[in-house]
Amino acid sequence: MREIGIGLLGFGTVGAGVVQILNRHGDLLASRLGTRPVLRAIADLDTKRDRGVDIGSAVLTADAGAVIEDPANQIIIELVGGTTVARQFVMKALGLGKPVVTANKALLAEYGQEIFALAAEKNTDIYFEASVGGGIPIIRALREGLIANQCKGISGILNGTCNYILTRMTREKMPFDDALREAQAKGYAEADPALDIDGHDTAHKAAILASLAYGSMVPMSAIHVEGIRGLAQSDIQCAGDLGYRIKLLAVIKGDSGGIEVRVHPALVPEQHMLASVNGVYNAIMVESDMADDTLYYGRGAGREPTASAVVGDVADLVRNLVAGSSRRVPPLSGPQGPLKIRKMSDIRTRYYLRLSLLDKPGVLAKITTVLGEHRISIASVLQKEVSVDKYVPVIIVTHQAKEREMDAALAEIVSLAVVNDKPVRLRIEE
Amino acid sequence: MREIGIGLLGFGTVGAGVVQILNRHGDLLASRLGTRPVLRAIADLDTKRDRGVDIGSAVLTADAGAVIEDPANQIIIELVGGTTVARQFVMKALGLGKPVVTANKALLAEYGQEIFALAAEKNTDIYFEASVGGGIPIIRALREGLIANQCKGISGILNGTCNYILTRMTREKMPFDDALREAQAKGYAEADPALDIDGHDTAHKAAILASLAYGSMVPMSAIHVEGIRGLAQSDIQCAGDLGYRIKLLAVIKGDSGGIEVRVHPALVPEQHMLASVNGVYNAIMVESDMADDTLYYGRGAGREPTASAVVGDVADLVRNLVAGSSRRVPPLSGPQGPLKIRKMSDIRTRYYLRLSLLDKPGVLAKITTVLGEHRISIASVLQKEVSVDKYVPVIIVTHQAKEREMDAALAEIVSLAVVNDKPVRLRIEE
Repeated sequence: MREIGIGLLGFGTVGAGVVQILNRHGDLLASRLGTRPVLRAIADLDTKRDRGVDIGSAVLTADAGAVIEDPANQIIIELVGGTTVARQFVMKALGLGKPVVTANKALLAEYGQEIFALAAEKNTDIYFEASVGGGIPIIRALREGLIANQCKGISGILNGTCNYILTRMTREKMPFDDALREAQAKGYAEADPALDIDGHDTAHKAAILASLAYGSMVPMSAIHVEGIRGLAQSDIQCAGDLGYRIKLLAVIKGDSGGIEVRVHPALVPEQHMLASVNGVYNAIMVESDMADDTLYYGRGAGREPTASAVVGDVADLVRNLVAGSSRRVPPLSGPQGPLKIRKMSDIRTRYYLRLSLLDKPGVLAKITTVLGEHRISIASVLQKEVSVDKYVPVIIVTHQAKEREMDAALAEIVSLAVVNDKPVRLRIEE
Repeated sequence: MREIGIGLLGFGTVGAGVVQILNRHGDLLASRLGTRPVLRAIADLDTKRDRGVDIGSAVLTADAGAVIEDPANQIIIELVGGTTVARQFVMKALGLGKPVVTANKALLAEYGQEIFALAAEKNTDIYFEASVGGGIPIIRALREGLIANQCKGISGILNGTCNYILTRMTREKMPFDDALREAQAKGYAEADPALDIDGHDTAHKAAILASLAYGSMVPMSAIHVEGIRGLAQSDIQCAGDLGYRIKLLAVIKGDSGGIEVRVHPALVPEQHMLASVNGVYNAIMVESDMADDTLYYGRGAGREPTASAVVGDVADLVRNLVAGSSRRVPPLSGPQGPLKIRKMSDIRTRYYLRLSLLDKPGVLAKITTVLGEHRISIASVLQKEVSVDKYVPVIIVTHQAKEREMDAALAEIVSLAVVNDKPVRLRIEE
């Protein structure tokens, strides 16, 4: 049987998972592909540490450049991470015309343009199923399965760490800090959790999904990003009372005329499929004009699920090498020309506001007057009968309003003498 | 730009949807594929009826054979349905070496073996994404996205008609007959609903999914099939009281050593993702050894979602024709040799039993004795305090037991003088 040599860059958690799958399912893959992918070399700065997997006859070296250059390695897997050496490695491999598999969302979100351009110039492939949604084959679904559709929108729970924290806050009524500490103790969150909880990881993935759905790279600078850091337990509870769950969402909306891409915590109706996605799981709801709503759910991270996606891409590249069908599915395709991306201030959504108001007659009227002056109409008001130091929490749910108007209204509201604390503003996605 | 000619057989609901998509998204598809798929001919016995779509310069004829034979039609779409002429058309097209797209689950479930063999012999492709799950790209996910996995099991809600009826029975407490009549009135169920409600349509889809997951055709005769006809409202309610929802499931379980494939109503825990799938929606949960659980959700039927899947396959075939990569992904692949399929009597599951028992001391002990003699252990008993003509309904939930033992136990139980009516036996899937 024909063999295709694989060079692996980065022998960390996911790298070890890839080796494990190639060992365990080598025969299965060979029988499914009619060709055997064979791991020939691994590059990692640490050549000593035991990863608990058998690398067989593969060479383990610190010299990534040599692995990329060796003609025996026909497909290069980049699992180094980061955007410095990983970028050099990917560009070097593509420059040699070698197809590349990567799981590196930050690299693609920030340097996708130059990477995709080089792959096109060299007539070779770059595959990246593992960069979004871990083991969920969402890239394939979006780019191939739904090719007959104009995308209308995508709502995704794309970060398992945040979803774990929010699930614990919802189910166990934990405060944010406790839930974060628990996630760290379980290995779901890093010691420095900023990339996850401040929404940047979700934003990288949102950039990739939006680019695939609409055919042109969406720059990171065009994405509004808010995380879940410091989200109050009381907002989780009030949202629950109103029939919603709070999730960190990537929201992508629009058509070929213009799109919006944003990442922020959002209230999702509890009967919506996304509200049922708990713990470290991810899910992506895609709204298309012909297929309507489809949803993809699974483990968004972890050694084996992510490695499953990496090896799935390797299988595609093996098929392309055997069939001589490189560039059969280019990374991005569709109508040419830059995308029109809406400013955050122009988006329209419903809002959840929590205000701490002086417990006195006429106070609520002041607030609703300000909102009305900004053309923001109120759907419901919930006042809890808990007065703390003369202030009561008041929840206001609005109908659709423009972000710019809400910004202006909140700036006025916060300056009123009857308002204590900074108002909480969350968006509602139906 | 290069054009690829399409011949469409069958101008019904889905056929009209395909024409609609090719009209509406012709430019989008061309820009995504770099090649333009062009509808050249349509064959249908009815060449007069207005389908409300513009067929442009395509020929509309009653002569399917001529459409298949015309060299201008490079890809043939079969949407005739049934297993008689559709089978002849598909075999004729493949025999000419032409790639075929079909949505015909019955044809594939019953004649897949000969169809796939002819496609292999002629070195051409047969694609069938629309045959299972309508607009959900599940075939692609299972065969390509999860290629690095050994499948451990699949649980699917694959029939929108049944899921609509069960949803109405659950939410509105409707009796089965009313829910069926409503589904018929809304066009979700046929005048003769047997194919749907007796589970045969689900079984066809289960055969396809099992064959893909395990690499060899699963014969229809190996599938245990029960539908939802006559399901009692009281069982929906009792299941709800126990924390379950009743769904018509396709259950596929096993590994390369042996599998089971069955279709029956089942109790699903209400916090399980499948329990949240309501109305005409479908969902497929796939358990894989590396990616773990992934779920795919969407519209399982309907003109546009199904046509979206058909045109998605057309795009794949266009790519294969352009790249010369026919047979890049064969219909089935994996370890060779026939699958070992477990007898229904050998499967193990948990059971829900509803018995109508004489309201007298010692009666329940008689039942539990019979169950115990068949090594069936009881997890819980729920006796509702409603005595009707001296009989009370009793719900028994068991631990895992063998189907053969349950069959034998129920045969004994039904013969006891204290038992009224036929016992209801449902299976529980966790």
